[in-house]
Amino acid sequence: MKSGLVTIKDIARELNISASTVSRALKNHPDISEETKRAVNELAQKLNYQPNAVALSLKQRRSHTIGVIIPEIVHYFFSSVISGIEDVAYDAGFNVIICQSNERYEREVANARTLLASRVDGVLVSVSKHTEDFQHLHNLQDNNIPLVFYDRIVPGLEADQVIIDDLDASYRATRHLIETGRKRIVHFAGPQKLLIGRQRKDGYVKALEEAGLEVDPSLIIEADSFEKARLAVMRLLNEKKKFDGVFATNDLTAIGAMQTIQKRGFKIPDEIAVVGFSDGRFSGITDPTLTSVDQHGYEMGTVATEMLLRRITSENSDYPYETRVLNADLIVRGSSVFL
Amino acid sequence: MKSGLVTIKDIARELNISASTVSRALKNHPDISEETKRAVNELAQKLNYQPNAVALSLKQRRSHTIGVIIPEIVHYFFSSVISGIEDVAYDAGFNVIICQSNERYEREVANARTLLASRVDGVLVSVSKHTEDFQHLHNLQDNNIPLVFYDRIVPGLEADQVIIDDLDASYRATRHLIETGRKRIVHFAGPQKLLIGRQRKDGYVKALEEAGLEVDPSLIIEADSFEKARLAVMRLLNEKKKFDGVFATNDLTAIGAMQTIQKRGFKIPDEIAVVGFSDGRFSGITDPTLTSVDQHGYEMGTVATEMLLRRITSENSDYPYETRVLNADLIVRGSSVFL
Repeated sequence: MKSGLVTIKDIARELNISASTVSRALKNHPDISEETKRAVNELAQKLNYQPNAVALSLKQRRSHTIGVIIPEIVHYFFSSVISGIEDVAYDAGFNVIICQSNERYEREVANARTLLASRVDGVLVSVSKHTEDFQHLHNLQDNNIPLVFYDRIVPGLEADQVIIDDLDASYRATRHLIETGRKRIVHFAGPQKLLIGRQRKDGYVKALEEAGLEVDPSLIIEADSFEKARLAVMRLLNEKKKFDGVFATNDLTAIGAMQTIQKRGFKIPDEIAVVGFSDGRFSGITDPTLTSVDQHGYEMGTVATEMLLRRITSENSDYPYETRVLNADLIVRGSSVFL
Repeated sequence: MKSGLVTIKDIARELNISASTVSRALKNHPDISEETKRAVNELAQKLNYQPNAVALSLKQRRSHTIGVIIPEIVHYFFSSVISGIEDVAYDAGFNVIICQSNERYEREVANARTLLASRVDGVLVSVSKHTEDFQHLHNLQDNNIPLVFYDRIVPGLEADQVIIDDLDASYRATRHLIETGRKRIVHFAGPQKLLIGRQRKDGYVKALEEAGLEVDPSLIIEADSFEKARLAVMRLLNEKKKFDGVFATNDLTAIGAMQTIQKRGFKIPDEIAVVGFSDGRFSGITDPTLTSVDQHGYEMGTVATEMLLRRITSENSDYPYETRVLNADLIVRGSSVFL
């Protein structure tokens, strides 16, 4: 074997292990055993293996760690996103550190500083509800740390982003209720000052209009929690409002509506069908189980991480920014059709 | 004012702000505005303020960041622990970075390396279910990074720890069922190879024995999920086993049991009372609501962080290690008594 022309593949063949194991052993990757690292490094030295100097210097500058800024870990959706992020990152030999803003702007700013100080190679970020100044994110970019936004994006900030088409998901959820024959569908809406609240309402309205059904403003109620839904259903029933379907902006709201409807003696889905949004951990344990929109948090995490790793590892990271729009799926269960 | 004797309090009085704001401004803490920092530093210079040199050098070596290793973020209990950690840490001027082991030993090892590379001042750790080698944790200690264990501890590893008295909590949950007049109580138990599973069963047995009730082995069933509970209840009812109470090792198991009991026409709590464990997000949205054990995750996070910050900031951190045992509370709801 001629020295200087020895490749990773040569070492792999000699030791009867995979090339990627050799590559990771040479990078001192934590997943590779000390024994394997020793064997690889000894053979590399013996064969006078010369890594591509440019590639190596790029690699050595990296911490092989990516940072995640997440609004609230307690939400099932966000914890699913983290699972997706971690699976892609660890597979690629990157570690993940997570900072939670807890929906607070000051903490998000502190998160960005902490990740910068930890010398992460890139950051995945979903901004808090209260973030209106983006200097801390520009600051990361100014330090050559690529960003990818997931779920909650920042209009005007140039970066890759992954979002879900909320309007389309709501439209399909409402159309499903219409297809089961419902004509008077209540919408429990999220706060209309938030884009997400407006888009979900717009999808509902679009489906009704397309089907030639009346959009009755008295059936559109801002209620986005278990308790608010219980009160709102109570009021609708006491006012003798007729309705045969409910589309709620999240699952807990749908479940609150379902319970009150059942307590007042109506059958689900026979008399009133209910559809939620975001398919968390609750939809499978209600009785009947809850039809809901699966937002594919895990997939969002994997896609965002793939985009970030591409930015980090590309020789030339100057290619145009990309926005990926994921579709959400309606998961039909017992609250809207007989199963 | 005599120079050299100027204190933080003097600066605070002069600027009409608190001493802790002055202290944090001098430390360049992110929560303090640039304006305040400028004013404090200018005045400190003007008055020739001399910080305690030893204390300052200790402080400057710090990153003011603590690391958290957590098994699974998706669990409500662990996300509550994180909230408690963050509230205490941010209040004290420390940032928090979180690494998830996802119950995998290799990831936990990678987590420890990442936190070491991020130069954290201390680490809060709850070990994964599969961790049997603790070299990665010793390694942190060898690098003078104090550890505090929360919830899942490592016998034999010298460190502060915070745990919950699981046996006592189960004992009280079972005693509550006995106090409502139940005599044939089913226990859906966790895996008996895990300490937590054994302790919860032991608490149940202790309460029965203390009340002079028979411990019937056919009423102790290893079932720790929604689905397993449904199957187990089905089988008990089909075998015409008589029982008037259920104590489950977690809430999802209790909810699975509740649903099947109700579907088979039994009334809760009239005919069968049900108690869960760990008071997650589900207990308030079932019908009836679920009596359960509140494990005080938030409190566990605050206590563990206070212990860690004390280790980090003490001039002499050589004091004996401490184990804090927190009590869990039973939260009585509609599944065990009429509300």
